[in-house]
Amino acid sequence: MLQTELFSKTLREAPSEEISVNAKLLIRAGFIDKLMSGVYTILPLGLKVLKNIENIIRREMENLGASEIFMPTLAPKENWEKTGRWNSMDDLYKIADSSGREFSLNPTHEEIVTPLAKKIIDSYRDLPKSVFQFQNKFRMELRSKSGILRTREFMMKDLYSFHLLESDLDSFYEKVVSAYEKIFQTVGLGDITHLTFASGGSFSKYSHEFQTISEAGEDTIYICKKCGVAVNKEIKEETPNCLKCGASDFREEKSVEVGNIFKLKNKFSDAFDFSVKGEGGKEKEILMGCYGIGLGRLMGTIVETHYDEKGIIWPSSVAPFPAHLLSLGETDSISIYKNLKSSGVEILFDDRDLSAGEKFADADLLGLPYRLVVSPKTGDKIEVKKREEDRTELLSIGKVISLLSSSI
Amino acid sequence: MLQTELFSKTLREAPSEEISVNAKLLIRAGFIDKLMSGVYTILPLGLKVLKNIENIIRREMENLGASEIFMPTLAPKENWEKTGRWNSMDDLYKIADSSGREFSLNPTHEEIVTPLAKKIIDSYRDLPKSVFQFQNKFRMELRSKSGILRTREFMMKDLYSFHLLESDLDSFYEKVVSAYEKIFQTVGLGDITHLTFASGGSFSKYSHEFQTISEAGEDTIYICKKCGVAVNKEIKEETPNCLKCGASDFREEKSVEVGNIFKLKNKFSDAFDFSVKGEGGKEKEILMGCYGIGLGRLMGTIVETHYDEKGIIWPSSVAPFPAHLLSLGETDSISIYKNLKSSGVEILFDDRDLSAGEKFADADLLGLPYRLVVSPKTGDKIEVKKREEDRTELLSIGKVISLLSSSI
Repeated sequence: MLQTELFSKTLREAPSEEISVNAKLLIRAGFIDKLMSGVYTILPLGLKVLKNIENIIRREMENLGASEIFMPTLAPKENWEKTGRWNSMDDLYKIADSSGREFSLNPTHEEIVTPLAKKIIDSYRDLPKSVFQFQNKFRMELRSKSGILRTREFMMKDLYSFHLLESDLDSFYEKVVSAYEKIFQTVGLGDITHLTFASGGSFSKYSHEFQTISEAGEDTIYICKKCGVAVNKEIKEETPNCLKCGASDFREEKSVEVGNIFKLKNKFSDAFDFSVKGEGGKEKEILMGCYGIGLGRLMGTIVETHYDEKGIIWPSSVAPFPAHLLSLGETDSISIYKNLKSSGVEILFDDRDLSAGEKFADADLLGLPYRLVVSPKTGDKIEVKKREEDRTELLSIGKVISLLSSSI
Repeated sequence: MLQTELFSKTLREAPSEEISVNAKLLIRAGFIDKLMSGVYTILPLGLKVLKNIENIIRREMENLGASEIFMPTLAPKENWEKTGRWNSMDDLYKIADSSGREFSLNPTHEEIVTPLAKKIIDSYRDLPKSVFQFQNKFRMELRSKSGILRTREFMMKDLYSFHLLESDLDSFYEKVVSAYEKIFQTVGLGDITHLTFASGGSFSKYSHEFQTISEAGEDTIYICKKCGVAVNKEIKEETPNCLKCGASDFREEKSVEVGNIFKLKNKFSDAFDFSVKGEGGKEKEILMGCYGIGLGRLMGTIVETHYDEKGIIWPSSVAPFPAHLLSLGETDSISIYKNLKSSGVEILFDDRDLSAGEKFADADLLGLPYRLVVSPKTGDKIEVKKREEDRTELLSIGKVISLLSSSI
């Protein structure tokens, strides 16, 4: 893509009201724009990152056998009254139409997916079933200070599962743990993301969070030095030992919750009177699980953990383009760009009429995995540099194509 | 995909409160589910149709040189006050948070994209620019009676363009006309969709709608018998002649507005004080255009114009799967399913334990382009039938693979 055609621009300075590293860098680099506190527009480069994340997650959801659906943003008050959350959920946005009828702007979809599943699942033979969604959800946040880590509207993947037997819920839950570990590994957070025991609420002993170590985090976790599994603050106060391996030596870290998984058991099926006849003909309540990942928060966490003083350093799995081509001085860079494109390698080509210094600074700020430089000095070669390394090398166009093809 | 794994089920009868053909058929076939009046969940089969439509539209938007972005659902009241639409737009949903601050649930995004473009576009050299979005929008509809043709929340593609010169806006507008014609042709509505002159409001002589002939439509259009271009009711009352060719012989039809394109000119740039320095150094207001297509409405219109007494008849370009495999009696249908899958042809396989009659009825209801039947009678062949034809033929698996590969 030509940088002159991009619907964004880089800024020398982040807006002064931004505190968080993720918002500062993503705004300066033109990945997002702030409409108001806690509400951002996703610009083309940011949307490419989000779509890459979405596709990584979707693949794992489909591997779990889950089907994708798209649920409404608006839901009737009655659904939320059935579960008691119309009044108990402080950050639920409520809206009324001119007839006075009230609706929620859904912050989560248990109140919609449970009665939906009740319509579709008639018999124990229809179980287990699982569905997932990618969509914007809403939470009334009055003070937003963490950039895209905590926003009023946010793109979520939620997965909901339905089971007859507790053993089936348990085994699906374990599969989701593995799927989540694979997702966080793939997006570049594997080494710093820890499965973390958290409270299970009133209906399950524990739930689990996936917590990524980051100074930007609002949470504190205690990581077992022996097995790497963590507990959150609430659990740590209750138990001195690792819940996984029993060891008692922990290190404390600040962290961002990038995912959570929860055995809802019969909490919602009970509220919606959702049961099926079991094999013996006896009516049995459905057991449910829910499993979330916030895509914007994940993008923000990647930035918080992948940057230096010059800008972002995208992991190649989520980078908007694999490389950034800079043309300095009089060159035939356009034919290199076209050559790469016709070989199926779509890169970002800085065709702007700017100084070398400005182009270098913006390439570092945007943080694509490879920087390609063409100048009168590089002859018929291309100077290639990885974003996180200082070393450059001169490669032929053929070598660059095979390098980038294998990195996609 | 195995039909037993689908998160939907077919219904013998449509819910009694549904009046429209599209909602009746889409609900009975398990493509959508109604949460409340004017608000629907998109189930897996419906989401596949919508994604097909989205990809057809996205390709044309990218061909126009437009960049994809994702804008917020919530916007500050102040943005809407600047254009006067906070009070003038009757169907605008308004919401307040607990601090009393008011927001819109955006029904359209001129109030967001204009100040955004103002931040990004600094100079005439940055023009023209265009951006598009696929996202849910909201409109306070108190009475919804047309199924997914008119809903409270709806998936829209909107494209916005920004120009320095009127001639540039005009030529982009003409390119959008061609792109829209291609889109409606591709989704199977080409022959019954007419470019229609409509009022341009206070800032342009005419705008254009794309109207699809259908008994389900709320609009009336007058189609020139000579050139096929139409005018809507408002324009017809003002002028007796075709605005394209001057002829005066029309036929009247009921129709659904499946797209509209509008020269906004300086209406919004004026409200947001959005101008750039022109080539001569003189400040010049930006000219804008907006171009919409409702994806849910388009899906509904396809159903309204592609069905018979047995069910839906999907055009292959948007069908959720190219074929529906039915296994009747003891057969080795699973190996045929796997064979197709490994050849890259993903079909829907009815592996349910139901009678032949029920499977045939559901295949007609779901309306996939090809029905494939395997039974003890078909031997090592497969009985192939097009949804809209009665004729069947026996083909080898190899022939079926090449037939379906070419139809995707």
